[in-house]
Amino acid sequence: MDGVTALDGITRPTLVVDEARARRNIARMAAKAAATGTRFRPHVKTHQSTTIARWCREAGVDGITVSSVEMAERFAADGWTDITIAFPFNAREADALLGLVAHGVRLGLIVDSHEAVRRLAASGITADTWIEVDAGYHRTGVDADDDQTLVDLATAIGHARKLRFAGLLTHAGHTYTARSRDDVLRIHGASVAGMLRAQASLAQAGIDAPISIGDTPGCSAADRFDGVDEIRPGNFIFFDLQQLQTGACSAEDIALAVACPVVGRYAARESIVVHGGSAHLSRDAADGPDGGAVYGQLVELDRAGLGWQLAEPAARLTGMAQEHGTITGPAAVLDRYPVGSLVLVVPAHACLACASTRRFVKLDGEPIEA
Amino acid sequence: MDGVTALDGITRPTLVVDEARARRNIARMAAKAAATGTRFRPHVKTHQSTTIARWCREAGVDGITVSSVEMAERFAADGWTDITIAFPFNAREADALLGLVAHGVRLGLIVDSHEAVRRLAASGITADTWIEVDAGYHRTGVDADDDQTLVDLATAIGHARKLRFAGLLTHAGHTYTARSRDDVLRIHGASVAGMLRAQASLAQAGIDAPISIGDTPGCSAADRFDGVDEIRPGNFIFFDLQQLQTGACSAEDIALAVACPVVGRYAARESIVVHGGSAHLSRDAADGPDGGAVYGQLVELDRAGLGWQLAEPAARLTGMAQEHGTITGPAAVLDRYPVGSLVLVVPAHACLACASTRRFVKLDGEPIEA
Repeated sequence: MDGVTALDGITRPTLVVDEARARRNIARMAAKAAATGTRFRPHVKTHQSTTIARWCREAGVDGITVSSVEMAERFAADGWTDITIAFPFNAREADALLGLVAHGVRLGLIVDSHEAVRRLAASGITADTWIEVDAGYHRTGVDADDDQTLVDLATAIGHARKLRFAGLLTHAGHTYTARSRDDVLRIHGASVAGMLRAQASLAQAGIDAPISIGDTPGCSAADRFDGVDEIRPGNFIFFDLQQLQTGACSAEDIALAVACPVVGRYAARESIVVHGGSAHLSRDAADGPDGGAVYGQLVELDRAGLGWQLAEPAARLTGMAQEHGTITGPAAVLDRYPVGSLVLVVPAHACLACASTRRFVKLDGEPIEA
Repeated sequence: MDGVTALDGITRPTLVVDEARARRNIARMAAKAAATGTRFRPHVKTHQSTTIARWCREAGVDGITVSSVEMAERFAADGWTDITIAFPFNAREADALLGLVAHGVRLGLIVDSHEAVRRLAASGITADTWIEVDAGYHRTGVDADDDQTLVDLATAIGHARKLRFAGLLTHAGHTYTARSRDDVLRIHGASVAGMLRAQASLAQAGIDAPISIGDTPGCSAADRFDGVDEIRPGNFIFFDLQQLQTGACSAEDIALAVACPVVGRYAARESIVVHGGSAHLSRDAADGPDGGAVYGQLVELDRAGLGWQLAEPAARLTGMAQEHGTITGPAAVLDRYPVGSLVLVVPAHACLACASTRRFVKLDGEPIEA
């Protein structure tokens, strides 16, 4: 970015969104959900931007997923009235949740223990209450094959005056360990199979249980969602290096980069140093070609400034401090970025880059709310 | 934390500061600087809190170090008038820097290339200008043994009308690779030796060059700073698991923890899940006992709630998602933290936990500005 482009006024690390790609990614997932008869409830934690959530609304979305009560409050303030908080119910936040209900929000909450159901029932919160199911990720949730607990919890939810049993919800976060689309589909298939077994256990007890699934790799790689009632992907709007390495997207789908000012050039080490470190991109990493950690990869704007592609040969963000990023690559690429210029870096993990950097512009330089 | 303590009102991940320990850590470093005749310019990037910076002022500090222009603006607004920005000069931020000078701030800036000096001289900014020196960390800076470049840059700075050559500055970030106090002292000694060689090169050219050093492990481990004019440690106020593993502090010095609500208990996996993930503690890691990554470690409040110590046996934050933290440890410890309770977790890296979480209270529950 030597010449003057729409981004030339950037002085500090700034998120840059390719709106055309983001809207194309939204439209593609919305179309897939419609074609398969699946409810589409995108997760907004990826961008945390009310502007980008409105792009989803324009594609027909009327309910969203968030990962914290604080995030629910921000999006409720922007007019969203149907919000699932896909994070275990935290009784300490009961007052804030009551406030959301009083504000007119239809809340979805998740639980995975009797203690949580007991506290939720006692809180007086009105909520669509999902049982979180562990279908292989082993982070949270009731084991998909623990019939007794599933039935007991669904029954307890059904008996609570202000709770409605909404169904079974899972996040197959282990699709992120995949390194090909086939890997993703195998993990996704096993996870959905677990959810269908859990559903069957409840059906035997006479309890109807819709299924909600969540992960972006699985939702992106799959062409159909047999037996699934709702999908909650988040990072399908931007994608990133982690999604690319799972096979969930192509490089041409990536719709987010971080613009970073170049502040140093170290020819002997074939590196440049930029303003853009772990305080901006986070230390979440993708695999490097040599097995090392890669925090980002350089992309280059096309001449018109309307799009970007991965730099060839590759230049990668391989070192970080709080504010410093070290990009290593061949001189042929790095020589195009003198001290004082800007580089665009696709992050390893878009969600954390957005959570950390919080300054958003579009490719045309127009700021959007973050 | 089963009983009611001053922290019981916490509902979301929140930084908790042990003010007594923090002030003791500040006093200890201030005393060491005074005893050795070294200027003490603490780095505020660790906490980014104007309240905690005032604790330093009360210990006699009148100049600070920051790592970004944005941080300089926040602290200038709180009355600090002597600020070194220990991050390479970024010409794109010239307008903001001119604003700081107009606001009455005496600015210290760092450069390591002719291009940066040329742009800085052309910007019209009045600044104490340091040459950043690479004394072994190999991130940024002029090689300590590159006599010619050091002399040329110092001369160019001296010829620029609004710049004053301030001396040679380094950050020996490679002390973080140490795993004992002796290791730290060896790396620190080699780094200072490099700075003294660089200083001697300039002396031969008739140029006087004070020396400024920066890293918390080196400044904490060393008892004296022969030949050094200024120290800029940051994390000596809080310390954390990374500092503990370098041997820079003892467990009793750690003055920061993150309070996290417990939202799940998984006995079969000997784990609890808390609200407190990579969006709050960052993914910076310390070494685990088995070589794996550890993002935090449980501490327990004493009965009076006036202090804490590491839980025994140890329970560690070994898994994270954006909002979830997974703490693994023996049931004997985890059974004390049912769903709905709070745990206190010392982060692997205090600076990034503060940059991410931004809600601060003291042990007595009183909020402080973050």
